[in-house]
Amino acid sequence: MARVLITSGPTREAIDPVRFIANASSGRMGRALAAAALALGHTVEVVTGPAEVAPPPGARITRVETARQMLAACERLHPSCDVLIGAAAVCDYRPAAPLAEKRRRDASTWTLELIANPDVLATLGRVKGSRVHVGFALETGPLAGAHARAREKLAEKNLDWIVLNAAETIGGDRGAYWLLARDGSDRALGERTKEELARHLVPLVTARSREA
Amino acid sequence: MARVLITSGPTREAIDPVRFIANASSGRMGRALAAAALALGHTVEVVTGPAEVAPPPGARITRVETARQMLAACERLHPSCDVLIGAAAVCDYRPAAPLAEKRRRDASTWTLELIANPDVLATLGRVKGSRVHVGFALETGPLAGAHARAREKLAEKNLDWIVLNAAETIGGDRGAYWLLARDGSDRALGERTKEELARHLVPLVTARSREA
Repeated sequence: MARVLITSGPTREAIDPVRFIANASSGRMGRALAAAALALGHTVEVVTGPAEVAPPPGARITRVETARQMLAACERLHPSCDVLIGAAAVCDYRPAAPLAEKRRRDASTWTLELIANPDVLATLGRVKGSRVHVGFALETGPLAGAHARAREKLAEKNLDWIVLNAAETIGGDRGAYWLLARDGSDRALGERTKEELARHLVPLVTARSREA
Repeated sequence: MARVLITSGPTREAIDPVRFIANASSGRMGRALAAAALALGHTVEVVTGPAEVAPPPGARITRVETARQMLAACERLHPSCDVLIGAAAVCDYRPAAPLAEKRRRDASTWTLELIANPDVLATLGRVKGSRVHVGFALETGPLAGAHARAREKLAEKNLDWIVLNAAETIGGDRGAYWLLARDGSDRALGERTKEELARHLVPLVTARSREA
């Protein structure tokens, strides 16, 4: 049996003590992946941002807020894991200088400087070793460009597979998915629920882990 | 019996199709206020942003995302209501020009221009008539300054009462509250749960509505 590390949910990046930048990730994909892995008898570690839904009973849970906290938690857990599935919608930008006090409303424009967060999957990809790494690419715009960008991300992050889905999927129950592999294959998985996608994906990636 | 309009939860202000600005408001205060008003036999309209918790059964619910949608829903419901309690943590800034496509990560700084949203309570305060209006002030920093800012908001928004609480209260179960009134009074309510605060506040403001 494998040890599976799953990231889940959004991250939040503070603007001031009240406001933050986030996205609508619900944690449902991470929950579905964790449940599918537990059902196969694997050990599951979930690192989750503040999500609507909680990971399933039986998973070990580390709760974080920010992208940098998610990376730190994953760096601690990754060495002892065989499989990494990055399902979190990590905020890839954060405010450069969060304010210590809540900014009061006034009529003037507020110029906010955002800087790039560390890339959790790319960072772990540099110490991947024989582990199996899977990512997700949430893309908007024309489909051809989305496939090309997902392929680029697969390479940049040193992934074995990347699941491409459309922005409409975020926070919802189902969506259309494509599975791109390191070997160049690109398979349409059609319209599925997150549970259906998880029950397809998890056996595939954990089998690859056993082959290694 | 009164018709009570309650705003609840956060709002979300789009940066692009995936990212947004929000806050950690859970909708628990709005739910507690709605439950307290329903328990007294009042008719309750709740306008809620995307919150963790749903309004109680028996309340009429209008779901919105943004501050501008919240204002539009409230402007429709306000004329037929006797009491307005603004418990939502409305984002008072939004991106000036949301992007149509998800911005891709790169190493460069991203400069985001934010502009002021309309103020829901101040806008409705200009057509208040004989209604009772109650707001909340979430303040950070030294307490003396927080009381002065809450007093300013009470005047600017043409409120009858304003409940002052600390930023730590947002998203949590309990907090320390102060109740400032139009007549100049400022009463410490002590540490309470949101349900306890609601059971104190709602009879007070609906009784005032009946006097009018």
